[in-house]
Amino acid sequence: MKFLFAAFLAVFAFSGEASGADVPVSEDSAACIECHSTFNAGIVSAWEKSRMSKVTPRAAKSVAPKQRRVSFDQIPDPFADVVVGCAECHTLNSENHKDSFEHNGYKVHVVVTPQDCATCHPVEVNQYGKNLMSEAYGNLENNPVYRSLVKSVTGVQSFKGLAATLMDPDELTLSDACRQCHGTVVDVKGFATRETDQGEMSFPVLTGWPNQGVGRINPDGSKGSCSACHTRHQFGIEMARKPYTCSQCHKGPDVPAYKVYEVSKHGNMYSALGHGWNFDPVPWNIGKDISAPTCATCHVSLVSADGDIVVERTHQMNDRLPWRIFGPIYAHPHPKAPDTTIIKNKAGLPLPTDLTGEPAAEYLISAEEQRERRKTMQKVCLSCHSQTWVEGHFERFENTIKKTNEMTLAATNVLLSAWKKGAASQKDGLFNEAIEKRWVEQWLFYANSTRFSSAMAGADYGVFANGRWAMAKNMQEMVEWLKFKLQAKEPPPRS
Amino acid sequence: MKFLFAAFLAVFAFSGEASGADVPVSEDSAACIECHSTFNAGIVSAWEKSRMSKVTPRAAKSVAPKQRRVSFDQIPDPFADVVVGCAECHTLNSENHKDSFEHNGYKVHVVVTPQDCATCHPVEVNQYGKNLMSEAYGNLENNPVYRSLVKSVTGVQSFKGLAATLMDPDELTLSDACRQCHGTVVDVKGFATRETDQGEMSFPVLTGWPNQGVGRINPDGSKGSCSACHTRHQFGIEMARKPYTCSQCHKGPDVPAYKVYEVSKHGNMYSALGHGWNFDPVPWNIGKDISAPTCATCHVSLVSADGDIVVERTHQMNDRLPWRIFGPIYAHPHPKAPDTTIIKNKAGLPLPTDLTGEPAAEYLISAEEQRERRKTMQKVCLSCHSQTWVEGHFERFENTIKKTNEMTLAATNVLLSAWKKGAASQKDGLFNEAIEKRWVEQWLFYANSTRFSSAMAGADYGVFANGRWAMAKNMQEMVEWLKFKLQAKEPPPRS
Amino acid sequence: MKFLFAAFLAVFAFSGEASGADVPVSEDSAACIECHSTFNAGIVSAWEKSRMSKVTPRAAKSVAPKQRRVSFDQIPDPFADVVVGCAECHTLNSENHKDSFEHNGYKVHVVVTPQDCATCHPVEVNQYGKNLMSEAYGNLENNPVYRSLVKSVTGVQSFKGLAATLMDPDELTLSDACRQCHGTVVDVKGFATRETDQGEMSFPVLTGWPNQGVGRINPDGSKGSCSACHTRHQFGIEMARKPYTCSQCHKGPDVPAYKVYEVSKHGNMYSALGHGWNFDPVPWNIGKDISAPTCATCHVSLVSADGDIVVERTHQMNDRLPWRIFGPIYAHPHPKAPDTTIIKNKAGLPLPTDLTGEPAAEYLISAEEQRERRKTMQKVCLSCHSQTWVEGHFERFENTIKKTNEMTLAATNVLLSAWKKGAASQKDGLFNEAIEKRWVEQWLFYANSTRFSSAMAGADYGVFANGRWAMAKNMQEMVEWLKFKLQAKEPPPRS
Repeated sequence: MKFLFAAFLAVFAFSGEASGADVPVSEDSAACIECHSTFNAGIVSAWEKSRMSKVTPRAAKSVAPKQRRVSFDQIPDPFADVVVGCAECHTLNSENHKDSFEHNGYKVHVVVTPQDCATCHPVEVNQYGKNLMSEAYGNLENNPVYRSLVKSVTGVQSFKGLAATLMDPDELTLSDACRQCHGTVVDVKGFATRETDQGEMSFPVLTGWPNQGVGRINPDGSKGSCSACHTRHQFGIEMARKPYTCSQCHKGPDVPAYKVYEVSKHGNMYSALGHGWNFDPVPWNIGKDISAPTCATCHVSLVSADGDIVVERTHQMNDRLPWRIFGPIYAHPHPKAPDTTIIKNKAGLPLPTDLTGEPAAEYLISAEEQRERRKTMQKVCLSCHSQTWVEGHFERFENTIKKTNEMTLAATNVLLSAWKKGAASQKDGLFNEAIEKRWVEQWLFYANSTRFSSAMAGADYGVFANGRWAMAKNMQEMVEWLKFKLQAKEPPPRS
Repeated sequence: MKFLFAAFLAVFAFSGEASGADVPVSEDSAACIECHSTFNAGIVSAWEKSRMSKVTPRAAKSVAPKQRRVSFDQIPDPFADVVVGCAECHTLNSENHKDSFEHNGYKVHVVVTPQDCATCHPVEVNQYGKNLMSEAYGNLENNPVYRSLVKSVTGVQSFKGLAATLMDPDELTLSDACRQCHGTVVDVKGFATRETDQGEMSFPVLTGWPNQGVGRINPDGSKGSCSACHTRHQFGIEMARKPYTCSQCHKGPDVPAYKVYEVSKHGNMYSALGHGWNFDPVPWNIGKDISAPTCATCHVSLVSADGDIVVERTHQMNDRLPWRIFGPIYAHPHPKAPDTTIIKNKAGLPLPTDLTGEPAAEYLISAEEQRERRKTMQKVCLSCHSQTWVEGHFERFENTIKKTNEMTLAATNVLLSAWKKGAASQKDGLFNEAIEKRWVEQWLFYANSTRFSSAMAGADYGVFANGRWAMAKNMQEMVEWLKFKLQAKEPPPRS
Repeated sequence: MKFLFAAFLAVFAFSGEASGADVPVSEDSAACIECHSTFNAGIVSAWEKSRMSKVTPRAAKSVAPKQRRVSFDQIPDPFADVVVGCAECHTLNSENHKDSFEHNGYKVHVVVTPQDCATCHPVEVNQYGKNLMSEAYGNLENNPVYRSLVKSVTGVQSFKGLAATLMDPDELTLSDACRQCHGTVVDVKGFATRETDQGEMSFPVLTGWPNQGVGRINPDGSKGSCSACHTRHQFGIEMARKPYTCSQCHKGPDVPAYKVYEVSKHGNMYSALGHGWNFDPVPWNIGKDISAPTCATCHVSLVSADGDIVVERTHQMNDRLPWRIFGPIYAHPHPKAPDTTIIKNKAGLPLPTDLTGEPAAEYLISAEEQRERRKTMQKVCLSCHSQTWVEGHFERFENTIKKTNEMTLAATNVLLSAWKKGAASQKDGLFNEAIEKRWVEQWLFYANSTRFSSAMAGADYGVFANGRWAMAKNMQEMVEWLKFKLQAKEPPPRS
């Protein structure tokens, strides 16, 4: 009775939204809610606040193309005239879901995947698949160079006889570390029976769960997790458009995008004035809805100005990215394909540049494609800035890419010299020894910070806050270390 | 006249709140306000915005137990039917207050203490006394090991003859440093006469003032400061429930709880969507009032979901904490007693573990108590997450406790080796020399960051932002340092 | 038609604001808007939200002095009765603007300068000129010591023959780094013709553009940029009063003012409760409008309490600053003149103190002036705190200045010893070598952080977060480095 009453209210409260039609919850979803509004009240409440709970696919499709938030061609029949509730997602494509299980008469799966979301949002899911992010798991795990970096970071070390020994990282640690963002493999290990308030029930036992990583390998074979940004169970566009979502994975010293944004003029305007902005409209109107961009404005959203479309929505975020400034090892033109394990540099390593900076050009976008992408991005800039301003900004930014690459080269030359002279050894991996770790920080922390700062005019992140100051100091310390090491001729006494 | 008019307005403006009765300000408080609304307008205005200025104790007691914000049994008679104004707190328990002084005919004290607050909130004050926080002053100052750490951080150094000399820290520095959070001893040094707009007046001269530290030693002998979290003079529950309050002491690299929360999915939801949440209700309804937890939700508040109580309010925050992940030196089961100076490890030091990690078990809670506390915490999680999700999260978290302890052990072994081989010396303290400070960072900064990240799924704080990367690098640098040191056989030339 | 209709609406929407009169847009500005509302919709929309677009100078002048936001004596005639639109600023003082150019029949300039803003705000512009900030460009570029620091940070290094070579920084890098905050020289290099939607047009080519640095050298010879804080094109007082604006340049490890504020009790109150505060009123009423200060409250704003003026507005922010705690090299009494290149210490260097800390007293304010400024600042404090509280706070703060200077001296003595013994060399500059960079961090990062923390009671920034812990550790590492260096007698082998 309780649920029916709530549903009845919902119909009235939401009627007229988008379509004028009533918005019925399916019988299946109503059954879910009946129990789970008690067991997991937070989830149900979040969903009740969502657009999903208020608009049917048919209504979502019926608005003008510019305002449209769905991209399917055909309204999927059983779903056309019910709102998108629990059952609509968690019982969809059951046949592909290894995590599907019998649950009170339904075939339910735990992990809702991009393939499920593609029912209503096929264009976005397809675009998303062209991002490095969608391959974030494999790009890390299937690249032997990066795997060695992962091991050097996450493996436990022990100390004996004046030497540290590095062990392989365990699976739980990996899920708790790199894979939080890169994604885990969520697979079904088996099924377990649990005593519940409803009696004995069986549930799948999953590997790598929980996880909302952008490159998650799902039990239906798909990759990624829409809820990484469109946070469950409200899935709001407001959430995805505010910079905090991106900050979850883009805030560390390796990729300080959010930190830089936060101190940029754009970020300051967002923080100071954003309370009066409107984060929901599609298209997103620059000037009317917002007075400065967030991450999504420049990289993702369908943006309009004064009624005209400025840029089309894209979930292939690199559509507007000429460069990959997050350099392993040097900043370089953006890779062509989302799977970066196919790249081979001159030395045969799966890296987008040589150790000395030369790009593995055939795997990277052309100068012409860079121009196109730069132009697309600049269209957003031009909504609030003059051509002169925008060109000046990009000239500086691309100069900074060049100069930070030179500083990476200088540090690399120190390391190459250390390897050559036997002060360090490349044999046990590129990332294990103290001097190698300093070298990693040169490009992964300091050069990256400087470039992110330059890209968004983030002031001190390009100077003292892990920027040029750190690059300059690290370089001096690497050189000094090498000199000390070469002076110490005798082997250390054994304990 | 001015004040009376304001009070008259207040009665009307607030009538009906909670009780329907008029809310009179006591004559004593009215007298305070008459002057202080001019001299300290900010304080008076803040109080006027507070619930204290609007609800009498009788009214506060009269609501249903679940909604109740006071915990006294008997309404304290002179206070029952006036709102809680200046005089109600600042003249309370005068006889116990060494800081009490004659002030325009009143016996006033400066420092309002938990013992004063206990008049209306005895249960909370009692619970709070069971926290490590309530003993934060003594736990630091009366533990010789920690005192030595304090000295190594806050003592001024000088340089002569190629050696640095460490001096004892001065009292002002200590009040400005560690004791800002841990609390000072607020004692009465004497009384001073000052020329004021009201003529000559006498005021107490206090040691360690100002201070709102959680373990403050008060002039009435009580410990702590409720206003550390319930900021004066608004004392709002909104303030205590928002994460910024906790961040004041839990943000540094030693205890990055807020930083991790901020980049966690929970934190992102709070930042993006929190503007629409409700921070005032008691109980606090998950889903309805908030869509994601703040610090207070998991650690303190009376939380309900769909009308049912999920967890009871507790001001003994460790009620929901199986582990103390802030390890000096290793993470360990939570101490039984708030006073940690009573702990003795095998080596006889007042530390919860041995240098090699073995817990001083008799002073720490049992595995069974850990299970109970874990279960209490998980009840909050289960409001929005499935059992499988929650178990998966805790399995990872407890694995990370184990692995970070292993990384602390590895670093400790380097230090023990350095001490043994004479490359460093334990005699002058555990924390003074460069290599000892690196060792401290291993557990105090990096292992802690990794564990906090794991506890809240804070992504990069467990990897590159002071997490595993830093542990791994620090370990390599410690080993390298030891080798350098052992190679340098001759003593340095004397200047 | 479109624009006229908008203007018509505007008159009605805004009539009555401040003056009751209609608020007409000038014909010139209307002509700008007609095209630019399409080409740069964001700018026009921002302006439409601004007070500039709603209030004429005559109306702005007509309010009571306390509420007044303009400071001119005579209403500038052509501007008196139109709102301040595009043309009013971008065609003003054309004769002085080297960046002025023919644009559709108007003489337009790109860069609006303090000299332009002074038409309506002469007092503020004049005060601003007395800040170090207004000389931020020259203070950095015309001081040979600081220039050498700039080079050591921004110059690219290369590595050959076991030595690093430092090159001069290029102009684009400087604009992207230090000069983002300090300001660039914006000069006219020439004019370029560009194909636009309106046909071929000519635009000035500017050096150092874009830039909003506080010490920008403008094409009309003036210094600074009001839009650094009063962000274009909304120019709102809300923006300038919220702490994010200041954070753009005051957030790095060298000057962590915002970071400290953020974790201070004041900052926590702002973050938790600020959503209900009022950032627009002039004067700004403590208690009524805000319950805790932001940067602007203490350093800039016209503040009142309970109807009385507490402090007058000042755009010479050092009016309330007894000390310059951002020490190059030691904290010291605030410099008298904004141009710090005139300072000479005993050694003849343009530094406010000797290397050993003795102030270059004749260039710094007197103890009496310090007392005056301290008293002005304390007036703000006293709005919410007792005299005892405020004095206790300042006693600690000034002790911390002293103690951090002592820690800087200790580190300086290590460096002086290194120079003397030939372990490092002063000849190639003070900031290039690894040990010199460590020394810089002692005062620029750690002593500064500790002092900022002390000034605002920012807890961990004075202890573990780049505070005393870092000073103590850095000191030990500097000493250890020196010992290592002196032990290594032989020169390193040449490659």
